[in-house]
Amino acid sequence: MDPFNNLEEIFRRFPGIGPRQAKRFVYHLLSLEQSDLESINENLSVLKKTTVRCSVCQRFFFNRIESLPNDGAGIVCNICKDPNRDASYLMIVSKDIDLLSVEKSRSYNGMYFVLGNNIPILEENPTERIRQKELLQRVNSLINQDNSAILKEVIIATSANPEGDNTADYLNNLLRGHINDEVKVTVLGRGLSTGSELEYSDSDTIKSALMNRKVVK
Amino acid sequence: MDPFNNLEEIFRRFPGIGPRQAKRFVYHLLSLEQSDLESINENLSVLKKTTVRCSVCQRFFFNRIESLPNDGAGIVCNICKDPNRDASYLMIVSKDIDLLSVEKSRSYNGMYFVLGNNIPILEENPTERIRQKELLQRVNSLINQDNSAILKEVIIATSANPEGDNTADYLNNLLRGHINDEVKVTVLGRGLSTGSELEYSDSDTIKSALMNRKVVK
Amino acid sequence: MDPFNNLEEIFRRFPGIGPRQAKRFVYHLLSLEQSDLESINENLSVLKKTTVRCSVCQRFFFNRIESLPNDGAGIVCNICKDPNRDASYLMIVSKDIDLLSVEKSRSYNGMYFVLGNNIPILEENPTERIRQKELLQRVNSLINQDNSAILKEVIIATSANPEGDNTADYLNNLLRGHINDEVKVTVLGRGLSTGSELEYSDSDTIKSALMNRKVVK
Amino acid sequence: MDPFNNLEEIFRRFPGIGPRQAKRFVYHLLSLEQSDLESINENLSVLKKTTVRCSVCQRFFFNRIESLPNDGAGIVCNICKDPNRDASYLMIVSKDIDLLSVEKSRSYNGMYFVLGNNIPILEENPTERIRQKELLQRVNSLINQDNSAILKEVIIATSANPEGDNTADYLNNLLRGHINDEVKVTVLGRGLSTGSELEYSDSDTIKSALMNRKVVK
Repeated sequence: MDPFNNLEEIFRRFPGIGPRQAKRFVYHLLSLEQSDLESINENLSVLKKTTVRCSVCQRFFFNRIESLPNDGAGIVCNICKDPNRDASYLMIVSKDIDLLSVEKSRSYNGMYFVLGNNIPILEENPTERIRQKELLQRVNSLINQDNSAILKEVIIATSANPEGDNTADYLNNLLRGHINDEVKVTVLGRGLSTGSELEYSDSDTIKSALMNRKVVK
Repeated sequence: MDPFNNLEEIFRRFPGIGPRQAKRFVYHLLSLEQSDLESINENLSVLKKTTVRCSVCQRFFFNRIESLPNDGAGIVCNICKDPNRDASYLMIVSKDIDLLSVEKSRSYNGMYFVLGNNIPILEENPTERIRQKELLQRVNSLINQDNSAILKEVIIATSANPEGDNTADYLNNLLRGHINDEVKVTVLGRGLSTGSELEYSDSDTIKSALMNRKVVK
Repeated sequence: MDPFNNLEEIFRRFPGIGPRQAKRFVYHLLSLEQSDLESINENLSVLKKTTVRCSVCQRFFFNRIESLPNDGAGIVCNICKDPNRDASYLMIVSKDIDLLSVEKSRSYNGMYFVLGNNIPILEENPTERIRQKELLQRVNSLINQDNSAILKEVIIATSANPEGDNTADYLNNLLRGHINDEVKVTVLGRGLSTGSELEYSDSDTIKSALMNRKVVK
Repeated sequence: MDPFNNLEEIFRRFPGIGPRQAKRFVYHLLSLEQSDLESINENLSVLKKTTVRCSVCQRFFFNRIESLPNDGAGIVCNICKDPNRDASYLMIVSKDIDLLSVEKSRSYNGMYFVLGNNIPILEENPTERIRQKELLQRVNSLINQDNSAILKEVIIATSANPEGDNTADYLNNLLRGHINDEVKVTVLGRGLSTGSELEYSDSDTIKSALMNRKVVK
């Protein structure tokens, strides 16, 4: 067992990393103090014990080991537990990192659900690609909640590309069969994103930008 | 006079062209037939006579020489003359090429005005940078038009970057002083442009995409 | 005939120019003074009369119309006429612009021959792709020159890519059949080009860099 | 202690990794099995024990723990121990990864020395930046070796950029003071690197390519 080669092999499987950068990573590790490597080890050892999926929104979050529930019930993240978040809105995102981008924008105060994946076009088993059962359970629980707000809107927040659109179509059909017409299903608005120049914008974006135009205050 | 060097010098001043590509252009010209060069000459000779600014929207358009008005009145382009275009909408764009992008999107049937430029931030003489006098004349003529529709909305269609925003702010202030409150002033909608991924979108774009979200049919 | 569209069409055929940049070029022309356009016309009109191929090295060069030879003999460029250039060296380059790069380096004082093209791999008629007949004439004239130096070396200065290598192989075989063994045939040296890092260099380049290593003074 | 944040922080310090990719790496770790994470841990634990610097050439290499010398002498890598390598040549490279590129080219069978760094231009303490003492020891041992070959040549194999050139100048001066004139000091050859086109090559590269030109067999 040669740990240099093994680690190079492990880094090659990291997202976006080629063979040369994998090698550089191992040289970087070699340049660290042994105590730094031990610190990596300690963090890795507890990573999966302390970073757990929320049983409600399915996102990864940090959870102290001591705070694991005794009664076998699911672990719930701080967003899902927060009484100040508006449970009449549910936003569905594809990945954990999308949720972080939305949170960072400070423009949304409802609940989330992390789907896990997009559904590729022509996918034969879309049900297998996403957390469909968990999503429907979550939607049901928000419809039947006895306290607080009743679900008003599901926001499908997928990316503006063919896979994202395909996922949104699939989710809309799925949800329409499970919720009544009083619950709105929406998708994110299209238009000029920051930095877009009109000259270089495609026709769909211009069309959306025109339809979503805003009265200036 | 060395025409190779002269033409190289001329091509260097073309937008986005460096010294090497300028040289390649002259070699390309040399590889053409003499008849091709004569055809370029003929087109250049009549370019400015036949491609004229519309006296109404200020855009460049092709106008047969014979069709020049005798009475000294301005020349009017086919869009501004088209009775099927809705004169209750006026869209202000920065450049001719922006207008072409909007036309290509087939999503707008109103009138246009080509400003000529954006207004850079901290510009001291914004009035000089744009066709301000012509714009105000055009807006007045649309407000006081005795036939057809009365102006309902001015759409400021600048790019989603700091210069575009600065231009939009300037135009809004300018127009507010010249039109009454019944005429709406709008800007293009922001949101995810085609191809945008949520993960890589900035907070402003996410905020706009959320505010402009759409109910799925 | 719409000169805007015609010129856009002409610019699209320029090397490396897409449809959008072609359009921008026409708008650039429209922004020029009529006198500037006339100047382009004048230069274009005389370009092919004054920029002519040297009958010796085949490169394009500027030649005053008045200086055309009366006797029907070929026109000769200033490099080929220069008595200070060393006619015992002949460098073969693929394109005019390669010759300009070598001249700019001020590292060569021999004669040139411009081949016109590279020979693509698997080309069935290599003879047609290049100025083969003119090259052999030129080599013969340098071998049999009664005054001055006798040809000592032919330098094949093609690019370091598969097409360039293929062209060099073809030329070497061709020349070997026409010149005796006292005339050397050489190719450009390989090694680290300016800016190359060892880490990112391919094995062939490293091998050449090692073989061509130099004693430090 | 939140291991997600800690690991994100650790990955941010990896060469070439920004904040977003650091986050993606942690999500990638979370997607692995616990057994995969344990395997990373095991490799990290022994990395620095088994990947050690060769006491002769200073490169990192894999060394089984059991094979540590008892007598306190230095550990020697397989290249430095290999009796088939020619000890009359010593190549100095800046970094471990440069040595791997040269080995991969299979064009060198001499010895190596890994300097550790380049010397930046205007560096005030060049002695501190590189393994100068170890280099001089290594050169001395090769000059005074009682068996086998006597050192014939030191090849300074730095990159073809200003830092590499500066390092080569420094090393040449340093070595000249320590070895007699019978030992050659060389630098890597310059010329067209694989893929270089003549048209885009700088003057220095063209000059070197001309000086290093080769007779075709």
